[in-house]
Amino acid sequence: MPLTFEDFPPGRFGTFGPRHVTRDEILAFAAEFDPQPMHLDEEAAGKSMLRGLSGSGWHLCSLMMRMMADGFITRAASLGSPGVDEVRWLSPLRPGDDLTLDVDVLEARTSKSRPGLGIVKFKCTARNAAGQALAEMTSPILIKRREGAV
Amino acid sequence: MPLTFEDFPPGRFGTFGPRHVTRDEILAFAAEFDPQPMHLDEEAAGKSMLRGLSGSGWHLCSLMMRMMADGFITRAASLGSPGVDEVRWLSPLRPGDDLTLDVDVLEARTSKSRPGLGIVKFKCTARNAAGQALAEMTSPILIKRREGAV
Repeated sequence: MPLTFEDFPPGRFGTFGPRHVTRDEILAFAAEFDPQPMHLDEEAAGKSMLRGLSGSGWHLCSLMMRMMADGFITRAASLGSPGVDEVRWLSPLRPGDDLTLDVDVLEARTSKSRPGLGIVKFKCTARNAAGQALAEMTSPILIKRREGAV
Repeated sequence: MPLTFEDFPPGRFGTFGPRHVTRDEILAFAAEFDPQPMHLDEEAAGKSMLRGLSGSGWHLCSLMMRMMADGFITRAASLGSPGVDEVRWLSPLRPGDDLTLDVDVLEARTSKSRPGLGIVKFKCTARNAAGQALAEMTSPILIKRREGAV
């Protein structure tokens, strides 16, 4: 039985990971999607505001997506998401980081226009092994209600 | 001379692309970061809300980042971004799409705490070849002010 809307009450849903992130992954993502010197070039990165090679913020978001997918989305009756309410990049993603993901449900409500659906607003926080928050993301996901709930 | 804060007044900055997106790219991104059936499996995708294989929303964001990088960020005195104010996924990214990116400056203001910097709020809209908006993203970027501007 997949997880349904009813399985996501407000509060802490869970913590997922760790997910190890290598320098090669950081460089490969940057080369494909975000070729800025601070994500690609050790020497330029050392002189940047982030003082050393850091992963693209979009790489971190994509890793958070993967951790959400493995953690619960691929076993939930999810129909996708209309977007992202907010992302805050708080501290740089570094080569060798071991990420964990705290997942909280901020709000869960049923859809007025589509009574078989619920909208669950998640807040996800990615942390490194020291517990430092690297990014926070708030995003709604559409999830089916339990059979017979309507 | 790199582009500085002064080069980003409110209004349309430019339109970039086209960037062709292949089925293989969509499948590769999904396998790595967003392994949901609607992004990976033709048959499951046909039955999903999006009625056919679609790229991950995070893939589309990452492609928009690449188009911004090629379009202007890598030739601007950019210091990075604190996050994303909002993303709306409006229509599915399909295999074979040719993306263009409209880039508008919503707001440009100088930093009070760091007078050498400006904060430019961009709104980017990704469109397919038919002009249909696939996603809108609003995000601030920190950009140095022109030498001698302070």
